[in-house]
Amino acid sequence: MPAPSDYPHQLDVSTRWHDNDVYGHVNNVDYYAYFDTVINAWLIREGGLDIQRGDAIGLCAESHCAFLAPLVFPEAVTAGLRVATLGRSSVRYEIGLFAQDGTHAADGWFVHVFVDRERRQSVAIPDAIRTALQRLVLQQ
Amino acid sequence: MPAPSDYPHQLDVSTRWHDNDVYGHVNNVDYYAYFDTVINAWLIREGGLDIQRGDAIGLCAESHCAFLAPLVFPEAVTAGLRVATLGRSSVRYEIGLFAQDGTHAADGWFVHVFVDRERRQSVAIPDAIRTALQRLVLQQ
Amino acid sequence: MPAPSDYPHQLDVSTRWHDNDVYGHVNNVDYYAYFDTVINAWLIREGGLDIQRGDAIGLCAESHCAFLAPLVFPEAVTAGLRVATLGRSSVRYEIGLFAQDGTHAADGWFVHVFVDRERRQSVAIPDAIRTALQRLVLQQ
Amino acid sequence: MPAPSDYPHQLDVSTRWHDNDVYGHVNNVDYYAYFDTVINAWLIREGGLDIQRGDAIGLCAESHCAFLAPLVFPEAVTAGLRVATLGRSSVRYEIGLFAQDGTHAADGWFVHVFVDRERRQSVAIPDAIRTALQRLVLQQ
Repeated sequence: MPAPSDYPHQLDVSTRWHDNDVYGHVNNVDYYAYFDTVINAWLIREGGLDIQRGDAIGLCAESHCAFLAPLVFPEAVTAGLRVATLGRSSVRYEIGLFAQDGTHAADGWFVHVFVDRERRQSVAIPDAIRTALQRLVLQQ
Repeated sequence: MPAPSDYPHQLDVSTRWHDNDVYGHVNNVDYYAYFDTVINAWLIREGGLDIQRGDAIGLCAESHCAFLAPLVFPEAVTAGLRVATLGRSSVRYEIGLFAQDGTHAADGWFVHVFVDRERRQSVAIPDAIRTALQRLVLQQ
Repeated sequence: MPAPSDYPHQLDVSTRWHDNDVYGHVNNVDYYAYFDTVINAWLIREGGLDIQRGDAIGLCAESHCAFLAPLVFPEAVTAGLRVATLGRSSVRYEIGLFAQDGTHAADGWFVHVFVDRERRQSVAIPDAIRTALQRLVLQQ
Repeated sequence: MPAPSDYPHQLDVSTRWHDNDVYGHVNNVDYYAYFDTVINAWLIREGGLDIQRGDAIGLCAESHCAFLAPLVFPEAVTAGLRVATLGRSSVRYEIGLFAQDGTHAADGWFVHVFVDRERRQSVAIPDAIRTALQRLVLQQ
């Protein structure tokens, strides 16, 4: 069974009251908000991504989630993050979401393509961000 | 090129101010909110899904989105919906999202598993919902 | 009883599946998302607000909502908008939310202060936006 | 200047990538999501509120926010919570939001009316919840 420690980076994300939907558990859409959050927090804090003025920004090209177990407010979610493929201008992340008792709640992936902010054409991943992403590449 | 008319059902969904993220376009997570919306509106309006008291409810087991073009507030989004596979207790939907000029903005799929509300174990799709879903199955 | 026609501008906003919270109705927070949406759609479409590059942007300084009746997905919400006070750099909007049967669901207000995008200091409301806002001022 | 320690209860809430709107700071609507979160987490954890099956539930009757300073992802928000008025069936909370450097970012209030889940008519606040709320009443 996967565990948070299988991921080189983990982040606890607070759930919110309204993450719960009418069926009483966190709505599927919010799982993707957790993905977005663990990824971009890493890019900003560790890679120096400047979301306001940086020339290169990461846009989501594709994402996927398999929902394995419910999550529920007010319990925090632990998001594990690793990099599966690090290309010239794109990166494929794998994310695991875990409840506080360790239950593996979701398995997802997410592809960022880095583009020029103005023209939105693909560019090489900036060096500082690449260095931060390399720390998340799983060693074989 | 796919068009809304390739889908047996289409729904216009308003964008909201805050769908736009810091990069100025609708955030990837909101695309999944549009999926959830076109699917559940169909189940409620056409299939009689009772989200408050019905015995059977649909939970998301897996979802996917390929992001093809930006969407932007305040323009509405047209969501096309069809059923790719209709099983005993689960259904796989395919969703296309389109901008108002017809641009194909996203291609996604979404699997609902119907479960008993109390025990959360899989059950057969209720008849009225199945009938509504059959109307969304593409004829070969 | 207030009605949408008491407001010089009305906009229908789609509800979304996840606007409903665990208690089965639209969550209070989403009411404010409808406010933000009817206001900014007007500023963009009628006032030419350029959210990406315009020098002046509107920031929310204060908002308020009285919740009078439930709203529920998948029914659309009609948002009525008027301008109560139009100052040099700020504007106070009043918003009414209505269910599709005409029920008055919420009464709110919202203050925008226009600021310089870079320095975030208050500036005069740009002329084109002012002209659009004047059309929403109630005649005494 | 108000500080988190002016509130008998404080909760750190993670910001999320998409809390930031196109102007680069947390959108005004999300401030209300933080209010909802600190309040309901308290009711559930300390007052034993059963959001799935409890007879009495709290509905928002009115809320308000004054926005004093920007908040920005990925920084957490500290929400301070106190009870200003504790009635038979309703409670008025006051909430302060603070950035991680202590900046007072917002001042808000929120009224919950407790109602019977089925008929949605006002009921006395259940004893366990009342006891938990009394701990948040400011001593004069």
